Amino acid sequence: MTQLRAMTPEQARAAFRAGLRVPTSGYSAGWTQANLIVLPREYAYEFLLFAQRNPRSCPVLDVTEPGETSASIFAGDLRTDLPAYTVYRDGELAEQRAEVAGLWRDDLVSFLVGCSFTFEAALSEAEVPVRHVEAGCNVPMYRTSRECRPAGRLSGPLVVSMRPIPAELVSTAVRVTSRYPAVHGAPVHIGAPEELGIQDISRPDFGDAVAIRPGEIPVFWACGVTPQAAVMRSKPPFAIGHAPGHMAITDVRDSRFLVP
Amino acid sequence: MTQLRAMTPEQARAAFRAGLRVPTSGYSAGWTQANLIVLPREYAYEFLLFAQRNPRSCPVLDVTEPGETSASIFAGDLRTDLPAYTVYRDGELAEQRAEVAGLWRDDLVSFLVGCSFTFEAALSEAEVPVRHVEAGCNVPMYRTSRECRPAGRLSGPLVVSMRPIPAELVSTAVRVTSRYPAVHGAPVHIGAPEELGIQDISRPDFGDAVAIRPGEIPVFWACGVTPQAAVMRSKPPFAIGHAPGHMAITDVRDSRFLVP
Repeated sequence: MTQLRAMTPEQARAAFRAGLRVPTSGYSAGWTQANLIVLPREYAYEFLLFAQRNPRSCPVLDVTEPGETSASIFAGDLRTDLPAYTVYRDGELAEQRAEVAGLWRDDLVSFLVGCSFTFEAALSEAEVPVRHVEAGCNVPMYRTSRECRPAGRLSGPLVVSMRPIPAELVSTAVRVTSRYPAVHGAPVHIGAPEELGIQDISRPDFGDAVAIRPGEIPVFWACGVTPQAAVMRSKPPFAIGHAPGHMAITDVRDSRFLVP
Repeated sequence: MTQLRAMTPEQARAAFRAGLRVPTSGYSAGWTQANLIVLPREYAYEFLLFAQRNPRSCPVLDVTEPGETSASIFAGDLRTDLPAYTVYRDGELAEQRAEVAGLWRDDLVSFLVGCSFTFEAALSEAEVPVRHVEAGCNVPMYRTSRECRPAGRLSGPLVVSMRPIPAELVSTAVRVTSRYPAVHGAPVHIGAPEELGIQDISRPDFGDAVAIRPGEIPVFWACGVTPQAAVMRSKPPFAIGHAPGHMAITDVRDSRFLVP
């Protein structure tokens, strides 16, 4: 992974722009990755309110002016510089694409939302294993039975990411990630996936399944795919997201989001 | 102060509703206090965006639906249950009032914004003195020469609160308050008030002057009066705020905002 980790955000974005379609976990170590949700201006207030009411899953890092194709924390082109995009029409996943330049409109507002990949380097540093990074696959994500607080026309379920953590390190994982509240922070749920309405942990709704070994506890963090689940439920006429796990690599350092 | 500290939010709000007009620092210990800014729905997106772009000064804790008179974290009546209000017309401070029930409109959206009073109990617990609490007066607040990031029609200067801290405790004050990022968090500036454009530290723009003793450093935190400074600069036709220092006492505990 060394080369991927060492890529600057600019280099990684150039590779994605050139057509590389891969999950971004492990890329550009130390640089913050972000979820993307793009909505018509007409939905922008409701989305920002939805985010304010669901800060664990939707920590907003940046918002563009309508039509803008870059953001204050993202110097690249939001239409082409992520590895893959999802396009929603009336809440239906219409297509996955490598770029969305041809679909761009002057009324589209882009929201960059914090991503839990930000704290994975800190977990590794604390000697907490991160299974999907070890396995070189995408993080598993699940739609839960827990409802977000709605805002206007927007409602939907909480989506979570899951990392299996050895029981003796769960406390460390809580302590480390709670120091990053702007990128999902501490876990929202530890163990007992059935309480989140997850029927089969080996079949995530997004991303890839990972092995849970004996002595490991599934630990769940709020996930920035939650806005896309709200789009699917709430059916705005048009929306664009990142493909889950295929994030925007920003120009700000993870340390910006570290407290205390 | 014991009796004030022991009042429940409900008791304190009832006292304010009955006409008590005092700064709320020291009231209802452990219960979160909040700044209030009320704007027409037509300005709500721009304000929420302004807050997102200036999270140190404008950490939004709750947003009402248009016309609502209570909030999810504030069971009282937002029109009557703060000790004092400010009313702005076209950006001019039109009046200070004990209640604003007669001015309420169906299109008004209320924003509750985090307040640094929340971390004062933690400062005291860490044996960091809080001068304005000792003196029984309002915290001094200053308009600075530092500009907030604008959002649409809203722009304005950063407003800060100031607490004089003994030099050997400044580090402790940073450490303690950085654990409360949702209520202004760590200081934005330590010492050198002239660098913030503060000409005369003994003449605050809002609140009361406090003594800075030999060996003490003025420490500045971002302040939730910043939205009112933006109203003064940006001149929306109508706005309501709390009178500086005269906060909304909410029904949530300070510990909710503590990280890690």
